[in-house]
Amino acid sequence: MSKPYVLGVDIGGTNTVFGIVDARGQVIASDSIKTRKHANFDDYIEELHSGVMHLLHANDAEDKIQGIGIGAPNANYYTGEIQNPPNLPWGPIIPLAEKVSKAFGGIPVAITNDANAAALGEMTYGAARGMKDFIMITLGTGVGSGIVVNGQLVYGQDGNAGELGHLVVKRNNGRVCGCGRTGCLEAYCSATGVARTAREFLEIRTEPSTLRNLQIEDITSKDVYDAAVAGDKIAKDIFEYTGTLLGQAFADMVVFSSPQAIILFGGLAKSGDLLMRPLKEAFENSLMPIFRGKTKIILSELKESDAAVLGASALGWEAKYKYEVPSRTLPAVEEEA
Amino acid sequence: MSKPYVLGVDIGGTNTVFGIVDARGQVIASDSIKTRKHANFDDYIEELHSGVMHLLHANDAEDKIQGIGIGAPNANYYTGEIQNPPNLPWGPIIPLAEKVSKAFGGIPVAITNDANAAALGEMTYGAARGMKDFIMITLGTGVGSGIVVNGQLVYGQDGNAGELGHLVVKRNNGRVCGCGRTGCLEAYCSATGVARTAREFLEIRTEPSTLRNLQIEDITSKDVYDAAVAGDKIAKDIFEYTGTLLGQAFADMVVFSSPQAIILFGGLAKSGDLLMRPLKEAFENSLMPIFRGKTKIILSELKESDAAVLGASALGWEAKYKYEVPSRTLPAVEEEA
Repeated sequence: MSKPYVLGVDIGGTNTVFGIVDARGQVIASDSIKTRKHANFDDYIEELHSGVMHLLHANDAEDKIQGIGIGAPNANYYTGEIQNPPNLPWGPIIPLAEKVSKAFGGIPVAITNDANAAALGEMTYGAARGMKDFIMITLGTGVGSGIVVNGQLVYGQDGNAGELGHLVVKRNNGRVCGCGRTGCLEAYCSATGVARTAREFLEIRTEPSTLRNLQIEDITSKDVYDAAVAGDKIAKDIFEYTGTLLGQAFADMVVFSSPQAIILFGGLAKSGDLLMRPLKEAFENSLMPIFRGKTKIILSELKESDAAVLGASALGWEAKYKYEVPSRTLPAVEEEA
Repeated sequence: MSKPYVLGVDIGGTNTVFGIVDARGQVIASDSIKTRKHANFDDYIEELHSGVMHLLHANDAEDKIQGIGIGAPNANYYTGEIQNPPNLPWGPIIPLAEKVSKAFGGIPVAITNDANAAALGEMTYGAARGMKDFIMITLGTGVGSGIVVNGQLVYGQDGNAGELGHLVVKRNNGRVCGCGRTGCLEAYCSATGVARTAREFLEIRTEPSTLRNLQIEDITSKDVYDAAVAGDKIAKDIFEYTGTLLGQAFADMVVFSSPQAIILFGGLAKSGDLLMRPLKEAFENSLMPIFRGKTKIILSELKESDAAVLGASALGWEAKYKYEVPSRTLPAVEEEA
């Protein structure tokens, strides 16, 4: 007997947002807790459980949750664990799926990383509805990706497939990347990559730029965007450079999976023509002839505030991991008066 | 009612080889015809049909063929057509699956390009048995690839996915590739790529080399191999260069699909440590840390003489395209006395 709702949980470095979602992708209700409040993971789970139970109770949905889908950085679909997360306090290996399923009395749980969740959300409720082959690219602090082939997420042998932010785009003399190597796409085309490009351009070039009024170390991609919109030449060239590198990298992605679309999500993706014109131009010019004119580059169709929860929730429909509740009675669910 | 055999057909630029294959991957019997003898495609199909029928008859297998799998350059799994083949005389679009199924009275036919067929062969009978995620790389005149994700070949939206020979490995100042672009892996790491590297090295470098005794335009990858085996420094460096570029490109493939293995097939793959040592070294050094030590680089386990037919035959088991035989009687199968 399938139930009418799923619970979507997005664990970010600052907030954990959770929402009740129906089959049409409506977020019925949502709430959040602070992710890093508890140094102990069990305490975090307890607060999450308590917060979710209140939300379910308030919406008369206690017995209506089919599954729980969770998106979190470095979350591994296969193992149910968060592995070596850069921004979470609970140790290198966090048994997320097990603890959540246990806390919720055995409701099936599935977890995946945030970019994969975004891809699932887009496929279930957004721009990729009906697509069997597409690539989701998230342009945020880093560059994340979720790849769908034959209607399925590509997880690879270990759950770590789809790290397209770490395609090497500068083989020689490339920038140091957070992954420990050099020249990765992420080091150039993330929000932080754009800020690094700005520092590089301002050092090397001599033209005037309003960006020179800022402390060079404090420049953000938002500063570059604002300057470009105001017509600043160097700022516009930074977007030209960023878009070109992205377009070239996208052409390499196409020889892999020949997707119907590459879908962009995240702050940088909202830069409009500043980014999209050079990106699409470089993309079409870089494509192998047999692929030209076939792969659309489009923006996410999910509302940004809902996207993370929706993406995670999409995984809830197919969640299979179920913690077996021991025969002894579980502690009663806490509820406030 | 499944039948005990499939027919595998490998259409090459010179020969078309076909064989009867059983479920364990034994080639029961095989034969071949010349691919380019007939300018007219129907005449070619007639000769193929006749040759196959003789083989089936001689092996008492006329009614024992479950399906026909065909590997051919630029063959499209989705459309059943060969599209714009560089080395075949029958026009830009060749309706291969339809014509073959028709000729054989409606036996289901499936076709795919030769690298995809090689991947299927390896998965069904060879080094990839039991693997759900791997990449097949064929190092021949060109560099071909077949990608398997979640146990399925990656075809993409148009059947053209898996063109990893056309990943761009030299973004600037790259060699012209047959695809019309510059810097593709294939322009460096195919047999012809190795020969091009030889010409480049011999022009630029000044050391003595036995390769200088050859006409520079006539040098083949085999010449380079022989010289390297004999200890020639430049020839060995050519393999070092080739292996390094391959290893770096393989590391980019891993961020896409995190495969259990990358499997090599083709003449160049048999260069032993000359190629494999620098390849594996560059591969491990280039991998993103989370992927290190996980993806094996191995050689095909199929006997070279059988591999193409076996690969094609593997597709025969799942062939679905079936030409509907019209109600009128088909011409009787010709048989020689």
